[in-house]
Amino acid sequence: MVEKVLATGVGAAKAARGSSIIYRKWVRGTGGLISGDLVEVIDRNGSEIACGLWEENTPVAVRIIHWGRCLERSPEEALERALEAAYKARVRSKWAVDFDSYRLVNSDGDRLSGLIADVYKDVAVVQSSSPAIDRHISYISQAIRKFTGVTHVYEKSVQRSRLDIGLEPRRRWLMGRRKEVVIEEGQARFYVDVETGQKTGFFLDQRVNRLELARVAGPGDSVLDVFSYTGGFGIHALLSGASKAVFIEEDVHAVKLLRKNLRLNGVQENRVLVLNTSIWKAIQAGEPRESFNIVTVDPPAFIQKPGEEAKKRGFRAYKSSYLFALERAAGNSIVYLSSCSYFLSREEFITLVTEVASALEKEYRILGDVRGASPDHVYRGEEYLSYLKGAFIHIDPSVT
Amino acid sequence: MVEKVLATGVGAAKAARGSSIIYRKWVRGTGGLISGDLVEVIDRNGSEIACGLWEENTPVAVRIIHWGRCLERSPEEALERALEAAYKARVRSKWAVDFDSYRLVNSDGDRLSGLIADVYKDVAVVQSSSPAIDRHISYISQAIRKFTGVTHVYEKSVQRSRLDIGLEPRRRWLMGRRKEVVIEEGQARFYVDVETGQKTGFFLDQRVNRLELARVAGPGDSVLDVFSYTGGFGIHALLSGASKAVFIEEDVHAVKLLRKNLRLNGVQENRVLVLNTSIWKAIQAGEPRESFNIVTVDPPAFIQKPGEEAKKRGFRAYKSSYLFALERAAGNSIVYLSSCSYFLSREEFITLVTEVASALEKEYRILGDVRGASPDHVYRGEEYLSYLKGAFIHIDPSVT
Repeated sequence: MVEKVLATGVGAAKAARGSSIIYRKWVRGTGGLISGDLVEVIDRNGSEIACGLWEENTPVAVRIIHWGRCLERSPEEALERALEAAYKARVRSKWAVDFDSYRLVNSDGDRLSGLIADVYKDVAVVQSSSPAIDRHISYISQAIRKFTGVTHVYEKSVQRSRLDIGLEPRRRWLMGRRKEVVIEEGQARFYVDVETGQKTGFFLDQRVNRLELARVAGPGDSVLDVFSYTGGFGIHALLSGASKAVFIEEDVHAVKLLRKNLRLNGVQENRVLVLNTSIWKAIQAGEPRESFNIVTVDPPAFIQKPGEEAKKRGFRAYKSSYLFALERAAGNSIVYLSSCSYFLSREEFITLVTEVASALEKEYRILGDVRGASPDHVYRGEEYLSYLKGAFIHIDPSVT
Repeated sequence: MVEKVLATGVGAAKAARGSSIIYRKWVRGTGGLISGDLVEVIDRNGSEIACGLWEENTPVAVRIIHWGRCLERSPEEALERALEAAYKARVRSKWAVDFDSYRLVNSDGDRLSGLIADVYKDVAVVQSSSPAIDRHISYISQAIRKFTGVTHVYEKSVQRSRLDIGLEPRRRWLMGRRKEVVIEEGQARFYVDVETGQKTGFFLDQRVNRLELARVAGPGDSVLDVFSYTGGFGIHALLSGASKAVFIEEDVHAVKLLRKNLRLNGVQENRVLVLNTSIWKAIQAGEPRESFNIVTVDPPAFIQKPGEEAKKRGFRAYKSSYLFALERAAGNSIVYLSSCSYFLSREEFITLVTEVASALEKEYRILGDVRGASPDHVYRGEEYLSYLKGAFIHIDPSVT
């Protein structure tokens, strides 16, 4: 049965404008509902505005699944339709056709607010930050199997947003069990460790940019891959013919997987140097000393929260790492700089990049438009889903 | 000989910050210089800040070619170095390697403020909007030949910015003569008519987006290409296997070339309908009536100048054409919407897209980040060079 929920002025307007959530302060008369119930949002005239899932004990009351009245008669039916639409979008855009791994569900971007799901070949990783999604997570896993054909599903609901609303962290296999999975991306293959890796195990968002680096790299290039994680950028460059690569990564687990990825891709050991250290220690030590034809910097989000203080500190960290990269860029080289901080706007990113390059007095060019996340990272204008910024930069030949 | 030019406070600061131009109000003591002379910009302490070309009788006094003191002893030498750097950037980024045509000089983005140069296989098209560039245009042509190997150079200096500062429009062959040239782009080939075509003859800026459409299109797709010009988007979709395409283009010259492009690419006539009409007439006539799996809209800049009135009128035009496109998009289809108005910001573009899609009550997804110009359209943060915005959108399967 579908319960009706009355949205007041602002809530009704938000729902009508296509928002993905309605806050509790904007709904009335909701006794007896529990998290995950299917509800129909109506306005004061009784018109059906949207259909969604109810959520208890959090600031969000309804996670909207689609506009208009509920065509479905159960939350399972509604979730299945939404998951099917998410899958079809990836098939239609060929992302799930051209690649064996992709983001299947991008939260609000897919009208599945509170849910992230990444597919790595035959393994799916799900992340819930909502009690409504929590209730249906087993059903969601089954539906994901049905559409994508995965045989393993791992739940990794450990985001801070989850803890903030009092939900316990959850890490567990919902279907099957698999330590690692190998995925393909262009010429490269990568081990993904869904249990211990960052986020869901891999950074699918940067795929378009890794493939762009693979296009640009070639024989004779020497590569510096800073914040290399498990080696995505550097390995692509090596497979495009680059003669050598230096990787800088602090995390021991990541370095272990990076070494496995190098072997997996048949990269000879003498072409590679892996520095298992932080960039800050590398800066202090003034290492590496040589310059490179290709430098990539894909740092963690240095600005983690709003406010001037956090921003100032984050700016400093970005500046230092971008400077580190640009100082090591030879003449006629390509540098890729990136930021995944939601709190650093696109304009601020460009300003930062131009400031750092200007400080070095290097003549440079930003090669085309600022680049963001891959097509599977869908959104509908929600700013927080448009966090990734990247710039490919050419350093002038005359630089010494 | 290199003359010294004194920049006052603001001018010196701008030059030091890496600006591409210094306005006349910010320089002193410049008797006897003529347009195109090489000048060294110094500050009050006599320090050399930048090296550039002098310009008479316009608000711009110096077009900066590089920072620091002049290493060159003539304007020709300075221009040659800058053109060589521009070419090397296109080779290094492989854009001039992967393609036979590309933007070689993107004005301020290449520190050749006032100059645009596009290469179409063995033909280059140059556009000057500066008296300094005007003086050296023959030398520039020779240098472009030297680096790129083109055998033909056409000058098409007809931009409004040129007329605004009192320069005559100029259209002429500076080297050779050639009515048309055929270029390759992925699977497709296109005639470019440099004399009568829009801009320099082709829209190289949208190349990444045309190639993305080629990736997404496939057998069974039906395509509507609105503002099709000479058919770039639609032809790529057809070559990827789309079964049919409808083109809407008002300009008679463009339609002629579009038909030639269809033949050039071996597209059977029964797969194509070309409507030589304006989109506004098509809207009035309610045509075409059917729906499509792929719709592309690449309109001219509907907002041509600053100000609320121009913006309001432009918004209406964008809204109508985006609505036209989305109304004809079937369920599970891909729509590409684009704007090349500098006066429409990225945020306004996203707002517009989401508003139009919401008005139709279609569930949709923007596939990844907003897309802009190709890597050969280099810039260094100059906002005006970051005018192109495009979004690939997926329309939900359930839409009827």
